[in-house]
Amino acid sequence: MTRKELISQIKQKQSFLCVGLDTDIDKIPNHLLDLEDPVFEFNKQIIDVTKDLCIAYKPNIAFYESMGVSGWNSLQKTLDYIPKNIFTIADAKRADIGNTSNMYAKTFFKNTDFDSVTVAPYMGADSITPFLKFENKWVIVLALTSNKGGLDFQTIKSENGKALFEEVVETSQKWGTAENMMYVVGATRAEQLAEIRNIIPNHFLLVPGVGVQGGNLREVAKYGMNSDCGLLVNSSRGIIYAGEGIDFAEKAREEAQKLQQEMTVLLSEKGI
Amino acid sequence: MTRKELISQIKQKQSFLCVGLDTDIDKIPNHLLDLEDPVFEFNKQIIDVTKDLCIAYKPNIAFYESMGVSGWNSLQKTLDYIPKNIFTIADAKRADIGNTSNMYAKTFFKNTDFDSVTVAPYMGADSITPFLKFENKWVIVLALTSNKGGLDFQTIKSENGKALFEEVVETSQKWGTAENMMYVVGATRAEQLAEIRNIIPNHFLLVPGVGVQGGNLREVAKYGMNSDCGLLVNSSRGIIYAGEGIDFAEKAREEAQKLQQEMTVLLSEKGI
Repeated sequence: MTRKELISQIKQKQSFLCVGLDTDIDKIPNHLLDLEDPVFEFNKQIIDVTKDLCIAYKPNIAFYESMGVSGWNSLQKTLDYIPKNIFTIADAKRADIGNTSNMYAKTFFKNTDFDSVTVAPYMGADSITPFLKFENKWVIVLALTSNKGGLDFQTIKSENGKALFEEVVETSQKWGTAENMMYVVGATRAEQLAEIRNIIPNHFLLVPGVGVQGGNLREVAKYGMNSDCGLLVNSSRGIIYAGEGIDFAEKAREEAQKLQQEMTVLLSEKGI
Repeated sequence: MTRKELISQIKQKQSFLCVGLDTDIDKIPNHLLDLEDPVFEFNKQIIDVTKDLCIAYKPNIAFYESMGVSGWNSLQKTLDYIPKNIFTIADAKRADIGNTSNMYAKTFFKNTDFDSVTVAPYMGADSITPFLKFENKWVIVLALTSNKGGLDFQTIKSENGKALFEEVVETSQKWGTAENMMYVVGATRAEQLAEIRNIIPNHFLLVPGVGVQGGNLREVAKYGMNSDCGLLVNSSRGIIYAGEGIDFAEKAREEAQKLQQEMTVLLSEKGI
């Protein structure tokens, strides 16, 4: 998907919501467990009730991979079921030396045809550039993550006074463009979004941590939104596990709708 | 596998060689391609001719994952075929927020039963500690990698004068012990091995980059070996692609043997 198409979807749906498909067989409603592929059935129903409200889906690859072959099958079926005008993110946090990153890129861009994949920056340029060779595909680089451990290394100040996450953003943005790179910035670090926006005014930011992890949507928009919106805000557990019974899809829609309506307000305040 | 068992294998075989199974369907000899599972057949023959020379195997997960379901099957068969007294490393470079790292740990420690998995440190403590809850299983944390991009961020000096890789080693070693944590330090950075040894005298180091990537084994031993050896030195392409024809296994053995013999000398010089 191109940047232009993504922005057009945001304007059309008045939403910058990404739904995280962290689908855990131990957490999905009992009545689905007798079906042939409970994970796909769960995702299918979640997609049915949220596809008019969100502009992206983010399957968390660990959850599928941990189920072995059946998990990869559920993932592929899920990806095939997602409407083509919705942006897809393989949340995989991959990256390795060049010839290995080539293989990861093949997995997510050729075999499974995701629009984007999340990558870890620790191994530097040649671990990420192989992903950038694919047309209309994106890498989403970890900058400042929403978890507690995000503060262990990412905020260490360098000799020149810059935090590691700033070094990462500043250096890595040169490897691609705002048309094929995004950054992960946790919603729990809303104020630092401003520092990142100073470095990359145009790039999209993928913002996890709204909901269960405690991030605040208005704060995220205040510090992170640009004139194209420039944000994909993800909620996973807060939406998909909103209910536990046969009405789980209905409850999921309610939670997604709350966020989408809040987003509509924030977009309109910005004139988008 | 326990640390004691690993050290005992090193002494018995007079080797600290790890063979990297970066098995690429596009690079394996033609005569294997008609078989039902060429990737497993290739690995099987490599294992047959190297299992007396090495103390670890390191399948590079990207290569198997990129083949989809058939790749995961080849990986499982390979793992089942490796003798139980040889240490196994899932070279996966995973790590994510806690509930996700739990899933990755499940994949590699429960479903596939590897002895260890490589992890990226960028997301900090809670992205790595879930892997440390499994008895006799190990995490191998990226410290200083052998690729060119390893110098993009890992060697950035912090305000207190420490390089990022030193911060990573110093902080992360507190999350586990020398019984369940190792570190990746590239052979192309042999002199910096000494700095890392200062911080963690007892931990094992997994050292890639000998061979194709240009690292020197004697230098690695000089700066990295401790009284238990404390090293697993990996060679992947240099061994498994030493030959291209029907004698590929023979050629692979020759290359592995050269390294193992050099290792025997280095171990004996150290009195191990």
